[in-house]
Amino acid sequence: MRVDGKLMRTIWPTGRGTVGIIDQTRLPFEFAEAELKSPDDAAHMIKSMLVRGAPLIGATAAYGVALAVSADPSDASLNRAIDALARTRPTATNLRWALQRCDREIRQLKPAARAEAAWQLAALICEEDVAINRAIGRHGLELIRAGNKPDRPVNVLTHCNAGWLATVDFGTALAPVYAAHDSGIAVHVWVDETRPRNQGASLTAWELAKHGVPHTIIVDNVGGHLMQHGMVDLCIVGTDRTTATGDVANKIGTYLKALAARDNNVPFYVALPSPSIDWNLTNGIAGIPIEQRDASEVTRMTGRTSEGRIETICLSPEGSPAANYAFDVTPARLVTALITERGICPASRDGLRSLFPEHV
Amino acid sequence: MRVDGKLMRTIWPTGRGTVGIIDQTRLPFEFAEAELKSPDDAAHMIKSMLVRGAPLIGATAAYGVALAVSADPSDASLNRAIDALARTRPTATNLRWALQRCDREIRQLKPAARAEAAWQLAALICEEDVAINRAIGRHGLELIRAGNKPDRPVNVLTHCNAGWLATVDFGTALAPVYAAHDSGIAVHVWVDETRPRNQGASLTAWELAKHGVPHTIIVDNVGGHLMQHGMVDLCIVGTDRTTATGDVANKIGTYLKALAARDNNVPFYVALPSPSIDWNLTNGIAGIPIEQRDASEVTRMTGRTSEGRIETICLSPEGSPAANYAFDVTPARLVTALITERGICPASRDGLRSLFPEHV
Repeated sequence: MRVDGKLMRTIWPTGRGTVGIIDQTRLPFEFAEAELKSPDDAAHMIKSMLVRGAPLIGATAAYGVALAVSADPSDASLNRAIDALARTRPTATNLRWALQRCDREIRQLKPAARAEAAWQLAALICEEDVAINRAIGRHGLELIRAGNKPDRPVNVLTHCNAGWLATVDFGTALAPVYAAHDSGIAVHVWVDETRPRNQGASLTAWELAKHGVPHTIIVDNVGGHLMQHGMVDLCIVGTDRTTATGDVANKIGTYLKALAARDNNVPFYVALPSPSIDWNLTNGIAGIPIEQRDASEVTRMTGRTSEGRIETICLSPEGSPAANYAFDVTPARLVTALITERGICPASRDGLRSLFPEHV
Repeated sequence: MRVDGKLMRTIWPTGRGTVGIIDQTRLPFEFAEAELKSPDDAAHMIKSMLVRGAPLIGATAAYGVALAVSADPSDASLNRAIDALARTRPTATNLRWALQRCDREIRQLKPAARAEAAWQLAALICEEDVAINRAIGRHGLELIRAGNKPDRPVNVLTHCNAGWLATVDFGTALAPVYAAHDSGIAVHVWVDETRPRNQGASLTAWELAKHGVPHTIIVDNVGGHLMQHGMVDLCIVGTDRTTATGDVANKIGTYLKALAARDNNVPFYVALPSPSIDWNLTNGIAGIPIEQRDASEVTRMTGRTSEGRIETICLSPEGSPAANYAFDVTPARLVTALITERGICPASRDGLRSLFPEHV
């Protein structure tokens, strides 16, 4: 997507044997690029969330493997990189999916052929992600078009960031929004701030503003009130892992919005690339591991002072403990439909089977 | 309640014709008192939330009237003060209830008798609030006792601050928690941070810590996940206005927790002093005015830097608009029961009638 006129993706090979990314921890205050030179860099940047979003994590991991086998194409090097990258974040499936694919395709090659193949594979995973998200946008556009009113914009509520910053390009949940906006449909996005890391207020608001899509930031508490008063036409969120039965693990708080949508007859859609489907799982609440992150993400917050300095402040009394669960699971029964690259389907085993017969 | 050993209330006449309060905008970082010398001070401190919480707003307004008629006991002065105080905050009923009571009882007196009567009335409203909250604590204690397990504490989730800082003393939602803790029941509180003003992370955590009640701060997004995993035994929240049919207006986001409680069979209780009941309203969603506050409460946050400086930071991109709805309405159907000073009743007209037959 465009950043101040320049067409960009979130990750790119630099041509010097390294990989460029956007340091997303510095947005929305500073647009800075960073460089991955080793698989350790890739693991660190995933864990520290310089890159985040399930599809982008998968792409970054693939480049991490390429960096590893470029430096040392041995089995030991491949194993070390895959193990380290797999341990970075537990919830997103795309990470394991990308690493398993790298493992399968690279290990069978002679060491001398591995580096080139790994770079090609990482690039292919990126291209596939872009194509998937374009298709999600095309399918989801029809849902937004269906909510179109002559007298006011279609109001979409989203949680966290499942925009182009969460993917290689275009985004998942926001792909339909961009497609609608670009085809002339008046659309307005309610942006959940998404505590504790504020990916909504910092990343979603930033990328919508850069693209010129009207939006309003709200705290995570507000969505229910808006839906009670007819101010949301549809919800679209992303997912970090989807079970074969349509349960959805996404950023903490997604479940609460799905409950409010159901209570107010607002359609609740989940946009997902098929690599985020965990075909082995059938019970999301019992089966999907939920990452717990550091309590300081809850008790501290970083932003810009009126003098332009980036400062971290503490919000709570000294010594009051905090807990930080990063994801929750929305049961399939609360999901109106899944928007995938192959089309829209019910959030159920039958629904997924209809689009992905080779898997179920 | 106790603050570092000293027994305190949230509001008190100083004996010098002024009124002392705790400046709650400076908690949890600094414990500072402030002084009301005029009805304008009272209106300003309610509007700027130096005092907040429906019962404390009512008590502060009563002292505002006392300050007004002490300076000038005329009808014009009484009218001016009541009008100004009534305009400060739209949602809480206690404010209008206290002002109507002052109006009724003071206006009928000769001007010379008004000042003394107004001070006595304000003190009486405070004493009644304390007695009400003690009774709410006693009734609610039985609900916590019922959730008592031999092997682990009773886990209570609360939203915003309905503790002693929101009242004259003891609190509403937290009164049962303090009663349980003080009677030896092991209790642990999940404290919703409560964006955008963070009354949970700043006020509820502070007062629970001061009293020694185990607690954990969570972002507002987390409660649904905790309930899905059996980590919440009951929810107790306060209310700023309750309809005659049991609908409840409380801090924005309360409705989302009530939905999660219902979805997971967790009891959802609302603690309320009867002055917060609006006997004229039967449809909370249509009838209760929801305050909209400044967008800067969403886009900016204040806290303490590592050097101990209090600093305000901006969280969102320049120019991204924000909306700030301060309350939402939880329909009676989602409320397990109301905890009042007269006992516990279903959230319904019949339930309220059984306890308050003189009103319905």
